[in-house]
Amino acid sequence: MFSEKERLEKQIRFIVEIDKAKTVFRQTVLMDGSRNENDAEHSWHLAVMAMLLLEYPKEQGLDELKIIRMALLHDLVEIDAGDTFCYDEVGAMDKEEREKKAAERIFSLLPVDQAREFRAVWEEFEARNTPESRFAAALDRLQPILHNYHTKGHSWIKHGIKKDQVLQRIKPIAESSETLWEYAKDIIEDAVHKGFLLE
Amino acid sequence: MFSEKERLEKQIRFIVEIDKAKTVFRQTVLMDGSRNENDAEHSWHLAVMAMLLLEYPKEQGLDELKIIRMALLHDLVEIDAGDTFCYDEVGAMDKEEREKKAAERIFSLLPVDQAREFRAVWEEFEARNTPESRFAAALDRLQPILHNYHTKGHSWIKHGIKKDQVLQRIKPIAESSETLWEYAKDIIEDAVHKGFLLE
Repeated sequence: MFSEKERLEKQIRFIVEIDKAKTVFRQTVLMDGSRNENDAEHSWHLAVMAMLLLEYPKEQGLDELKIIRMALLHDLVEIDAGDTFCYDEVGAMDKEEREKKAAERIFSLLPVDQAREFRAVWEEFEARNTPESRFAAALDRLQPILHNYHTKGHSWIKHGIKKDQVLQRIKPIAESSETLWEYAKDIIEDAVHKGFLLE
Repeated sequence: MFSEKERLEKQIRFIVEIDKAKTVFRQTVLMDGSRNENDAEHSWHLAVMAMLLLEYPKEQGLDELKIIRMALLHDLVEIDAGDTFCYDEVGAMDKEEREKKAAERIFSLLPVDQAREFRAVWEEFEARNTPESRFAAALDRLQPILHNYHTKGHSWIKHGIKKDQVLQRIKPIAESSETLWEYAKDIIEDAVHKGFLLE
């Protein structure tokens, strides 16, 4: 058995470790275009979006805490596995394996009960087989669309992304919410119209 | 009455606005010492800490969602009011007024019902008169201690901060949790011993 002190030290060790999420950069740039966004900021933004947009999922009565917990933890695995650009087909090939290994290492810094609990949150997000995880995934797709739109298509243009690729990528929004799906499609149409995104 | 579309547009407007929290920098530096931490990252870190350390507040049965919501929103006012360094006595003089004005502007971007709801979350955090807000405040004091300790007292040394100032600053930890208070005091003693903090 561990003493209370050892338990707290493991928890603090984890808190120190996840600071690294602040240095894992995504392809998305901030709305002011000044620099790339990191995983900690992105996760915070999703969590606030969950609070704010909870009226839109098709299925009602979703567990807000569950969604926010997924938003907060969903990218921790990238501390080891790195950010795989969502249109990178080569990187996608071993993404799952890299992320599983990362989850193994990072969550096992915690006391056993919490390692299990946190890992379950991440696995639910990945599996997308509950209304909460489908909504969390929808937010995870919607947020970079907003960033791209407000930076005149920064990372779309940089990587020569086409409208159909974006529509394919954000399909999980349709699985969770009709309202947000219609909104996202409107933005994409407008982005094409304004030259932020290739037809 | 607003249409559903107008309502969603207000919510999205808010989501875009709060992106600015990613560019409000604190005195604390990241654990790797590479740069200052911003408010979005800090808020994310607190929210995960709330999930992790919920067994420690004196009062049991706290509402986790409430604490996390406070952690996520507590620094939004700094988008307008800026970060006031916690040992800055001059800045502290008009801090309350600056932050109230900021809350007025930022939350009123939202639909009326959500403006009221989000503002109430922030006000509860500020008032520190519930077990949840006392715990959120404790985390808000503990987190920079960890950052300072792990960067060999970076901002303590930079600003010539003394042990008594830190102990005074982190008193809210004692109001919420004995275990975390003992832990924080140990860290501070050790920081003095190692020369990271002035006696």
